[in-house]
Amino acid sequence: MSPTRSVSIGPVTLGGKHFVVIAGPCSIESEQQFLETATTVKAAGATLLRGGIYKLRTDPNTFQGLGDDGLRIARMVRKTVGLPIVTEVTDARQIPLLVDAIDVFQVGSRNMYNYELLKELAHTGKPVLLKRAFSATIEEWLLAAEYLEKGGNPNVILCERGIRTFEPALRNTLDLAAVPYVRTLSQLPIIVDPSHGTGRRDLILPMSLAAAAAGADGLLIEVHPHPEQSLSDGYQSIDGPMFATLMTQLEKILAAVDRPLLKNV
Amino acid sequence: MSPTRSVSIGPVTLGGKHFVVIAGPCSIESEQQFLETATTVKAAGATLLRGGIYKLRTDPNTFQGLGDDGLRIARMVRKTVGLPIVTEVTDARQIPLLVDAIDVFQVGSRNMYNYELLKELAHTGKPVLLKRAFSATIEEWLLAAEYLEKGGNPNVILCERGIRTFEPALRNTLDLAAVPYVRTLSQLPIIVDPSHGTGRRDLILPMSLAAAAAGADGLLIEVHPHPEQSLSDGYQSIDGPMFATLMTQLEKILAAVDRPLLKNV
Amino acid sequence: MSPTRSVSIGPVTLGGKHFVVIAGPCSIESEQQFLETATTVKAAGATLLRGGIYKLRTDPNTFQGLGDDGLRIARMVRKTVGLPIVTEVTDARQIPLLVDAIDVFQVGSRNMYNYELLKELAHTGKPVLLKRAFSATIEEWLLAAEYLEKGGNPNVILCERGIRTFEPALRNTLDLAAVPYVRTLSQLPIIVDPSHGTGRRDLILPMSLAAAAAGADGLLIEVHPHPEQSLSDGYQSIDGPMFATLMTQLEKILAAVDRPLLKNV
Amino acid sequence: MSPTRSVSIGPVTLGGKHFVVIAGPCSIESEQQFLETATTVKAAGATLLRGGIYKLRTDPNTFQGLGDDGLRIARMVRKTVGLPIVTEVTDARQIPLLVDAIDVFQVGSRNMYNYELLKELAHTGKPVLLKRAFSATIEEWLLAAEYLEKGGNPNVILCERGIRTFEPALRNTLDLAAVPYVRTLSQLPIIVDPSHGTGRRDLILPMSLAAAAAGADGLLIEVHPHPEQSLSDGYQSIDGPMFATLMTQLEKILAAVDRPLLKNV
Repeated sequence: MSPTRSVSIGPVTLGGKHFVVIAGPCSIESEQQFLETATTVKAAGATLLRGGIYKLRTDPNTFQGLGDDGLRIARMVRKTVGLPIVTEVTDARQIPLLVDAIDVFQVGSRNMYNYELLKELAHTGKPVLLKRAFSATIEEWLLAAEYLEKGGNPNVILCERGIRTFEPALRNTLDLAAVPYVRTLSQLPIIVDPSHGTGRRDLILPMSLAAAAAGADGLLIEVHPHPEQSLSDGYQSIDGPMFATLMTQLEKILAAVDRPLLKNV
Repeated sequence: MSPTRSVSIGPVTLGGKHFVVIAGPCSIESEQQFLETATTVKAAGATLLRGGIYKLRTDPNTFQGLGDDGLRIARMVRKTVGLPIVTEVTDARQIPLLVDAIDVFQVGSRNMYNYELLKELAHTGKPVLLKRAFSATIEEWLLAAEYLEKGGNPNVILCERGIRTFEPALRNTLDLAAVPYVRTLSQLPIIVDPSHGTGRRDLILPMSLAAAAAGADGLLIEVHPHPEQSLSDGYQSIDGPMFATLMTQLEKILAAVDRPLLKNV
Repeated sequence: MSPTRSVSIGPVTLGGKHFVVIAGPCSIESEQQFLETATTVKAAGATLLRGGIYKLRTDPNTFQGLGDDGLRIARMVRKTVGLPIVTEVTDARQIPLLVDAIDVFQVGSRNMYNYELLKELAHTGKPVLLKRAFSATIEEWLLAAEYLEKGGNPNVILCERGIRTFEPALRNTLDLAAVPYVRTLSQLPIIVDPSHGTGRRDLILPMSLAAAAAGADGLLIEVHPHPEQSLSDGYQSIDGPMFATLMTQLEKILAAVDRPLLKNV
Repeated sequence: MSPTRSVSIGPVTLGGKHFVVIAGPCSIESEQQFLETATTVKAAGATLLRGGIYKLRTDPNTFQGLGDDGLRIARMVRKTVGLPIVTEVTDARQIPLLVDAIDVFQVGSRNMYNYELLKELAHTGKPVLLKRAFSATIEEWLLAAEYLEKGGNPNVILCERGIRTFEPALRNTLDLAAVPYVRTLSQLPIIVDPSHGTGRRDLILPMSLAAAAAGADGLLIEVHPHPEQSLSDGYQSIDGPMFATLMTQLEKILAAVDRPLLKNV
């Protein structure tokens, strides 16, 4: 097993001794929604904030993100709450807009094969959270990471978020064995997204604990103050109290595997 | 979430407060091999012993189990070591031979759809460990369990052992989210087989911990005194010292989820 | 490409110069239903008759076949109409009941891995139609055929009937490329089942033509006089007039690939 | 079944009465290679020419296309040989470079989910050949087409090129049933790519015939004068004589389904 190479994001180190939790809404929907969520997840122990600005949706008739107004809200909340921000980039032309406003570029599952985008992100040198395509073999995922690394950007964080299988009951099949398996091949830090990985609110807690037990370096969790009112993916978002309960139980598992949770940066 | 209905196997209760570990070789290969493994796994905290007598192999040119001589060894070791035995049944005609010699009938992944076999096992009333077919939806798996229950046998233990997906790196994709998801639909106890679920010795420890964290009621683990000499599935078997390490770490995770390990029955 | 080894079934040769169509209902439901279907499909050019007697159903609460009464009807219709009969065997204990009443043992998709059943069928020497499990690799399918051949029965007919994939729109994904690919590895005749392969009545005609164009040796098609009243799989059965239309168009494709349809045996 | 809406590409109408064959190399490698292939495929009856300029490769260490020099060669060959050209676009910034040099934008399998690219292609109004992602459900594929149509571009051609399944023997599983199934949902023309769909030179002929029999509106075939020297995908390219044989047999199948081949435009 290779030692992990850590990635620095402001005061946060991902891939080191500490376990890191990234939380926030699927999409930034309003100032109030993003601020409230940010405050809540920070209080419960999250140290990075997620929030979508430009969304990539399968159905052209659904909510596509706030766009530029979301960018303004992101800047404001980042400053007010003091957490670094992770946001998805869906097109190379968004890079100059995002580069100073956010801290980690997220490459979503459907863009993992978008090598032109990866080549551009390589030039920024900024941390990239590279989700596994739901159809990608582990080998293809690591080759996508190589597009970033060969292009000059070593700050890559892998994120397992479930793969597409024949099982219709859940949105995806979360491939947790990918976590220890990737360790045998790569030094990149690897985190898990149990929200997309299961697509069901009630499975996020047990799969978060399982990811920590399997050796992940962190989690990416969708939290919304009022999931039932969410404009996207509400069925897989948890609310503030559920997130606080998750963090309490997570710390017990982390203690059992001798891996402290990073808190209060 | 439904309360789990427990299954009694001699002094062992599976599906109750305690977490249960079943361990042993893929196949019974000799008196010495099975006795040594049984003694080792019992010492480390396993409370049920697994060992194949009649094997179902994809390739007709490979080892097919000891058959009747395996049955004799199973009886002897069961008595000597004092652990109940779990063994696979691959044909209805084996039932009368096995019924008094072993304690749990295992239905393997490729026989989950063998409803004629399930109907016969229903009549025995004896505990049945029903593995999920590697191609089965969760719905089909629970319908297979219904063949046993409707036939008069409520003593069913579900076992997740990985599903077949496009990912070629590992033998199967272990679907751990099935554990908490099945809890929302069924009262049957559910355990996890990380040996078949990953097909790699070095992934058994992390995936065992993950299964416990996800809320499984137990584990089914392949242990062989000398995996490299094993006649079947050696690449996914761990040896005695690896198993002892696993049990030590498992107990820490179980403490974190407030679920004691069943030991020393 | 290996030359195909043909299999003789009474007056029918499958795997030779001629293309063979097997047709009939999913299950034998009554004397009248089976006799009417048999007469209809014979008139349209089928030379083998299918009909289920002992059914293997996923849901224990659904119709499981007529059993022994179906056997009586099968004998009667076989004699009256004069077509050899293909029927599924789901348990080794049915072999003595079926062996004189029918002409081809069909091993269904869920029994392809039932090696104990295959070993028994090997001893009969009677033709076996071996469906590919919906989860089987082509390699596993050919190894299953080897259980029959090594056991002394060279009369094996392979049948592609669709595999399980992530696509939810259709019941299965019909893997037609398996037809020419198997030819590069095996001398066994290979036919296609577009009824299970698609699960939709309106796709049976185009996929039958495609199978013939891809080089299959025959087809297995579900025909029911009144599909909407069928006790099983009615949504994927075609009626008599649709079958007659299919046969007319099929002959044109067969002429284009220089492969005559076997008729009027 | 909906009537198909045809797409005009210079003198070629795709989706009308005639069946259209698009052929050419995976990548443009040199003037000589592209000119020779173009001349060969035109002589055998192809009416559209394919050839990659900007390649999207999984492995960053492999050949990535000629880029701008490929563009120059494409212009020259298009003029000399007189066939319209289909080429893949992998990034929105290539659109202005390509728009006057080529006739059909191809969106590759890994870019089907790249909705930002689709939105830009919608504005061009130029025909788009939209390949199904190897992981896409048919529903997702049609929603991707909707991004083009809603954006103002009705000139969409669907292309089935195989999906990713558990079967390791072939590169993809060609889902031919998607052809007649899409007809029940959409008026868009649909063609088949047996080269990527199978990944094996010897399966291209039978699967081309099968696609025509299943009702496709055309084919997209990789042809290379010397496949063994090809810089990409040579194992799935056929040479000129194999292509000529294919066209001869294809015409017989097309006659059987009463669909003439478009030739000599």
